Amino acid sequence: MRVINFGIIGFGTVGSGVVKLFLENQDEIARRLGFKLRLKKIADKLMKSKEGVYVPIDMITSDAYEIINDPEIDIVVELVGGKTFAKQFIIDAFKNKKHVVTANKALLSEFGNEIFTEADKANCYIGFEASVGGVIPVIKTIKESLAGDKIESIYGIMNGTCNYILTKMSEEKKDFYEILLDAQKKGYAEADPTLDIDGIDAAHKLAILTSLAFGTNVNFSNIHCEGIRDITNLDMEFAADFDYTIKLLGIAKDNGDKIQAKVHPTLIPKDHPLASVRLEYNAIFIKGVGCGSILLYGKGAGMMPTASAVLGDIIDCARHIHTNSIKTISNRGYLESNMQNKQIEFIDDIVSKFYIRLMVVDKPGVLASISGILGEKNISIESVVQKGRAQNGEGVPLVIFTHDTREKELREALNKIGGMDYCLAKPVFFRIEDKI
Amino acid sequence: MRVINFGIIGFGTVGSGVVKLFLENQDEIARRLGFKLRLKKIADKLMKSKEGVYVPIDMITSDAYEIINDPEIDIVVELVGGKTFAKQFIIDAFKNKKHVVTANKALLSEFGNEIFTEADKANCYIGFEASVGGVIPVIKTIKESLAGDKIESIYGIMNGTCNYILTKMSEEKKDFYEILLDAQKKGYAEADPTLDIDGIDAAHKLAILTSLAFGTNVNFSNIHCEGIRDITNLDMEFAADFDYTIKLLGIAKDNGDKIQAKVHPTLIPKDHPLASVRLEYNAIFIKGVGCGSILLYGKGAGMMPTASAVLGDIIDCARHIHTNSIKTISNRGYLESNMQNKQIEFIDDIVSKFYIRLMVVDKPGVLASISGILGEKNISIESVVQKGRAQNGEGVPLVIFTHDTREKELREALNKIGGMDYCLAKPVFFRIEDKI
Repeated sequence: MRVINFGIIGFGTVGSGVVKLFLENQDEIARRLGFKLRLKKIADKLMKSKEGVYVPIDMITSDAYEIINDPEIDIVVELVGGKTFAKQFIIDAFKNKKHVVTANKALLSEFGNEIFTEADKANCYIGFEASVGGVIPVIKTIKESLAGDKIESIYGIMNGTCNYILTKMSEEKKDFYEILLDAQKKGYAEADPTLDIDGIDAAHKLAILTSLAFGTNVNFSNIHCEGIRDITNLDMEFAADFDYTIKLLGIAKDNGDKIQAKVHPTLIPKDHPLASVRLEYNAIFIKGVGCGSILLYGKGAGMMPTASAVLGDIIDCARHIHTNSIKTISNRGYLESNMQNKQIEFIDDIVSKFYIRLMVVDKPGVLASISGILGEKNISIESVVQKGRAQNGEGVPLVIFTHDTREKELREALNKIGGMDYCLAKPVFFRIEDKI
Repeated sequence: MRVINFGIIGFGTVGSGVVKLFLENQDEIARRLGFKLRLKKIADKLMKSKEGVYVPIDMITSDAYEIINDPEIDIVVELVGGKTFAKQFIIDAFKNKKHVVTANKALLSEFGNEIFTEADKANCYIGFEASVGGVIPVIKTIKESLAGDKIESIYGIMNGTCNYILTKMSEEKKDFYEILLDAQKKGYAEADPTLDIDGIDAAHKLAILTSLAFGTNVNFSNIHCEGIRDITNLDMEFAADFDYTIKLLGIAKDNGDKIQAKVHPTLIPKDHPLASVRLEYNAIFIKGVGCGSILLYGKGAGMMPTASAVLGDIIDCARHIHTNSIKTISNRGYLESNMQNKQIEFIDDIVSKFYIRLMVVDKPGVLASISGILGEKNISIESVVQKGRAQNGEGVPLVIFTHDTREKELREALNKIGGMDYCLAKPVFFRIEDKI
């Protein structure tokens, strides 16, 4: 019986999870395959013992190249993360005609074009299901299940930390920093939470999905990216009053010549399936010409969910090695030679509805001035609500919902309004997606 | 450039949808494939023109065997439905070494063992993603994405008609037959709705998923199957009072030696993701050792969603034909030779919590008698609520939630209670799943 060997570089949380799941399920996997899949080697610089995971000591090395250069190893599983060593390991694996499985979204979103080109040149497979939405099978769904369909748009809750914080803020009426501290204590947020809460991690994942959904290379640095630091309980309550929920979404749309790809807090109708995605869960909502609306939901991170996705890719790759058919499905679903280079629309040019919240002096004439400034920019107002009356000369919040407006005009109008003396704080605005 | 040809037998709603989607997306599909996929022939007995779908007249035949026997055709798409002709077409296609794509759940659930064996013997692919949950990519997820994981249980809203009726009953407080009539008028229910509302269609789909999830042949006739005719608004309201929603679920669990596979109305916590699946949408909730909880949601029926799934399978198959790798992934995810024959647990032996609703005479001693009878069978009560007081000698509803109880004992106790003269109607009971 043929044996297909894989090696794992990086024996941290996810690496340990992969080993644990593989060892536990070996018999069941054998029932599926008809050939032997074998874990041959694990490489890690830090030889810490992993709780609950037992492997023979001679399986472990501190040198990644004992895996990359091992002629018996077919699949290299890169789980070290980061963009320097990981990239070199993957490129060198391809040089040795080895297939790769990785969960490294930062690497793929920033250096994807180079990595996918190298994989293609070497006739190698690269599996990256775990890089977006953890265990959610979104990569396979886009590349394979929806291969005959035309995807129009994707809306994703793709960062568990942000969704955890927003859920807690909304349910417990506590402010952002209080919940962030709590999330850090509970392990739902990193000590340095920047990558998560500023939307960068979500943008990494969005770049990958956008590329697969529309068959185009994506320049990561052109993705507009806003995080959740500026969301307040006040805005959440106002949004709820108008039957909206605020979520951090990654949004991709195919507009024909150009595409949209952006990450920002978004007001969505509170009865939309994405609105009920709570805590650390992720969900990807896909709209297509044939499929209509699909939602895929699950854990976007964590030891075992990520391990499950990585192991799924290892098996996918092994099955194709077994039948000499690595090129059956292109790594990004489209032939590399057919990938396009669609431009990402500049955020200023995107038209949408907006939620605006101002803090203004409560006196006659203010609303007239504001609507005048909005009117100058052809911004039409759907509704305006002033919440309460001012006490002791403090400001009152004024909430405005606009009709469709180009963002450039909106920003210009808000700059002008922000400079008026009745305006007591920097105007806040969020985009609305009410037709998803 | 190589050409891979497919033919469609059955030019009804779904067949027309496949043709429409394929013709519209041909350019995009070509960008993915690197070989030519061509629709060569369409067979249908009834030559009705299909609105909005244009095909050359010489592409159409009334004889399915012009497709099955065409040496140029690689893939036969069976969309006639039913269990007689469809079965013969598929078996004959395999005899001619042709691959098959079908959406025929009734056929696969009742004759799956035979059909999958024939496919395997002929080294042929059979794609059936559209047979369960329409466009929801659940078949691929189980066979491929979760191939390294161990699925523990599946809970599915797998019949859009039932879910539409239950949603409307719950939201509009109208009774079952009124909503059914309305659903029939709107095309959400068939003129003869039996297959749907009695749970048979859901059981067909459950049989297929159970087989894939646990790698076992499933004897369809052993699946316990109850529909939604007995669900009343009264029960929905009582369930809601206790924070439950009633959904028709297909449930499969792996208990090691035996499996559970059953379809019945089920009380689930109202904040569970399945509880918020509204109207004609379907959703499959999968729990696994590694993956934790996954939910896949989308349209379970309809022309274009089903067509999208069928076309996805056609492309999947064509890609594997192109690389001579049809056997890369076994048709059911497990090698046919490794499929087990696990027994389905008899419904009487299954332990769960129950919701019981009685109509009883409102007089002292009744509750004592009922609890006595339940006690004799070792059924322990979690809570009892009598709703209101009786007027004019009418009965009052009495609702009981039990702790874990074997169904046999519950049925025996309810038989006895039903025979008491204070009991004014046949006792109603539903099963509760509160740990999903």
